[in-house]
Amino acid sequence: MIASTPAPPYYAVIFTSLRTELDGDAYSIMADAMEELAKQQPGYLGIESARSEIGITVSYWESPEAIKSWKENVQHRVAQKLGKEKWYAAFKTRVCKVERDYGM
Amino acid sequence: MIASTPAPPYYAVIFTSLRTELDGDAYSIMADAMEELAKQQPGYLGIESARSEIGITVSYWESPEAIKSWKENVQHRVAQKLGKEKWYAAFKTRVCKVERDYGM
Repeated sequence: MIASTPAPPYYAVIFTSLRTELDGDAYSIMADAMEELAKQQPGYLGIESARSEIGITVSYWESPEAIKSWKENVQHRVAQKLGKEKWYAAFKTRVCKVERDYGM
Repeated sequence: MIASTPAPPYYAVIFTSLRTELDGDAYSIMADAMEELAKQQPGYLGIESARSEIGITVSYWESPEAIKSWKENVQHRVAQKLGKEKWYAAFKTRVCKVERDYGM
């Protein structure tokens, strides 16, 4: 789903990843769990996700503080650690300010 | 491929789309052509793309001016028009300033 976000400014975290071939089922369960958990965080605005050769997940947030809290969430930190150790061959996280948007 | 981008700040355009079922071959040809054309634009830094239920393409740019020039590129405008008329059931474009990044 395309996320319904408020008028800018708001914030985006672009998470781009290349998976290893390890542990597909556990990864999927954790990815779904993290998406559900993100939705419960203060300042959460929406999420968009797609995967083909690489995966791109963009989450949207009200403020830099909301992003920081999510990054430091204890369950999320466990997922990040497993991601680095097992699931991702490479990843990049980019924290952005959304300055304008348009669409149809 | 995960894009190799310079140290922030730089700019990102997050383009999220939901396809119609129309015209798959022409769409793919145009999408590839637009990616090649983007790479030739001044200020282009990189591109990342994935599609499953929705498509997410993130292009990276040196400046807001580079983004504006790309948006107004004549061949790109033809593609945008066809996209609105035929290929996309919905889309959202978000223009962002990348404030920090990290990865492995």
